Amino acid sequence: MTPFSFDLLKTDSRTAARRGRIHTRRGTIETPVFMPVGTQGTVKAMLPESLREIGAQIILGNTYHLFLRPGHERIGRLGGLHKFMNWQGPILTDSGGFQVFSLGDLRKIDEEGVVFQSHLDGSRHALTPELSVRIQETLGADIIMAFDECIPYPSARAYVADSTKRSGRWAIRCKEARRADDGAALFGIVQGGMHPDLRRESAQELISIGFDGYAVGGLSVGEEAALMYEMMECTLPHLPQDRPRYVMGVGTPENLVEGIARGVDMFDCVMPTRNARNGVLFTTFGKISIKQARFQDDEAPVDADCGCYVCRNYSRAYLRHLYQCNEILASMLNTHHNLHYYLELMADARRAVEGDRFEEFRRDFHQRRGLQ
Amino acid sequence: MTPFSFDLLKTDSRTAARRGRIHTRRGTIETPVFMPVGTQGTVKAMLPESLREIGAQIILGNTYHLFLRPGHERIGRLGGLHKFMNWQGPILTDSGGFQVFSLGDLRKIDEEGVVFQSHLDGSRHALTPELSVRIQETLGADIIMAFDECIPYPSARAYVADSTKRSGRWAIRCKEARRADDGAALFGIVQGGMHPDLRRESAQELISIGFDGYAVGGLSVGEEAALMYEMMECTLPHLPQDRPRYVMGVGTPENLVEGIARGVDMFDCVMPTRNARNGVLFTTFGKISIKQARFQDDEAPVDADCGCYVCRNYSRAYLRHLYQCNEILASMLNTHHNLHYYLELMADARRAVEGDRFEEFRRDFHQRRGLQ
Repeated sequence: MTPFSFDLLKTDSRTAARRGRIHTRRGTIETPVFMPVGTQGTVKAMLPESLREIGAQIILGNTYHLFLRPGHERIGRLGGLHKFMNWQGPILTDSGGFQVFSLGDLRKIDEEGVVFQSHLDGSRHALTPELSVRIQETLGADIIMAFDECIPYPSARAYVADSTKRSGRWAIRCKEARRADDGAALFGIVQGGMHPDLRRESAQELISIGFDGYAVGGLSVGEEAALMYEMMECTLPHLPQDRPRYVMGVGTPENLVEGIARGVDMFDCVMPTRNARNGVLFTTFGKISIKQARFQDDEAPVDADCGCYVCRNYSRAYLRHLYQCNEILASMLNTHHNLHYYLELMADARRAVEGDRFEEFRRDFHQRRGLQ
Repeated sequence: MTPFSFDLLKTDSRTAARRGRIHTRRGTIETPVFMPVGTQGTVKAMLPESLREIGAQIILGNTYHLFLRPGHERIGRLGGLHKFMNWQGPILTDSGGFQVFSLGDLRKIDEEGVVFQSHLDGSRHALTPELSVRIQETLGADIIMAFDECIPYPSARAYVADSTKRSGRWAIRCKEARRADDGAALFGIVQGGMHPDLRRESAQELISIGFDGYAVGGLSVGEEAALMYEMMECTLPHLPQDRPRYVMGVGTPENLVEGIARGVDMFDCVMPTRNARNGVLFTTFGKISIKQARFQDDEAPVDADCGCYVCRNYSRAYLRHLYQCNEILASMLNTHHNLHYYLELMADARRAVEGDRFEEFRRDFHQRRGLQ
């Protein structure tokens, strides 16, 4: 069993951008990395082979969804999530906390954990740090996330402080609940809302517990981008250089580039897949909405600078037609293109850090979008 | 330009099953053949490459749908349907008649053609034999179908007789409307309802006009299978041996095997694709509904005797989970499996005719389903 480890290969000289390599029991991940989200045991509208083809290195699974349906024990009996969904690469699972806490009135939190009602059938369940870890282990996750509260924004400072402390106590319980020697990693999650001092304290507490990697949670929850970047800046320097850093649920292509510039190694977001199903496509010159009538006679590809399967074979006019007809192929092709865009962006960013030219890469990226 | 032609390679000695080869300007089609339906410029939930991979030789496009959206002239300006949808193999288009006539109160028929209202926005349109041919030519169809009325079942004999005569007059107009020397084929369609004498007369009239192939229309419209087979039996012997014979809109795997036994060369049907999206899967032992709870822990493939991508990589439990979650991947995988099943069935049937053992093939087919 290859133990989990992280190699920091290079740091950019003018930004905090890092080029690294994560070793997991199911293979190596080149960082910075974007992780496509496979909520219910499938990255929506994508075959696993297509994910490989466009360079996906690791995907996400959602503990909350899989716990409710089809059930983690069932997946365990069927040989684990990798076999179930036919994805042999690494999988990171979230803790279920994010979904449970976003249930609003359907959940109740105390020191022990959270009692909640299923959004599917109203059935009552309890989720604790121990259960979250057991679910993730049963699914067969290669990277397990600690169970924490993703604090709503805005929240009163007192609530943020209390919740962050409680997430810290839960982090200890998660670490204690971990099985030894299965080769999976456990990541802690920094909270602290939009308060730099609480962020710092949270980071320090997690480091004292000791994790294989550190995530920054509670961002991309409705705050302005500038505030999100500020929180990255006041959190990341407190995290160890020799562990991967993961900003959860982020974000737009711009957020990714700015996150990398601040030292983030890992990202995940539903944006490329969800936007694809809504006809919003990412390109080197910004976003376009393929449903617009101006594309109905447009024989050009989505992005002339894109080499993906979709741009090599289909016109904007065809993609617009499929979207108008509500065809499944619209979701398939749009998702393929968007994920390819995100993964290529990260590959380009990795090459830029390797060449010590991330600042130029970042400037060029923004210029092509007309943001500078 | 390769002219359209048909080689009859072999006829089974104990049934009327035929093994043939159709030459089109876009390649060769081994018959008997099943043609997946690509209504709106896409075989729903399938990439063109996947269609090729599972052995699709020719697909269908629907004149009615493409005429309304995105418009045949737009597709023509964009380089034709093949380029538009990224399918380089042969395409057969229907005449639009079937959809228009099924609009019920939204259409009105006279000698000239049909005036109808769009099911999309209520807009009024006229469809005539001449326009139907022009639409199909503009789309770039390799096999063009004559514009006819698909007679409802049951209908009074007088209506069937009148309608069939009118379809005959329309068939002449279709042939006269055809452009010369573009290499596309024009097929006539036998009508005549469930009346053997009217079927025979229709066939004779079409033969006297002269077509590249002959279809049997107006079947699979609600009649019993036995009656459908009877109509095949009283129609097919009147058609020329040296032209392909196409039974439109048929059908179940059983219908296909029985149709081949009676001398049919070509079939099309939405059944494998539509059933797939409803969770109904075809197997060598009959149909299963993947949504059933009995599959929730079933780690076996859909069909242990199937070698398709889906059966090689996914369990029934996973397919059931995807269906329950309404995931797009459910439609993708189910469609892939069902079309593979249909296309393999036809490949097996072709081999059986080649080996002069179609009767054994047919008996084995029914036995595995417990029908005998």
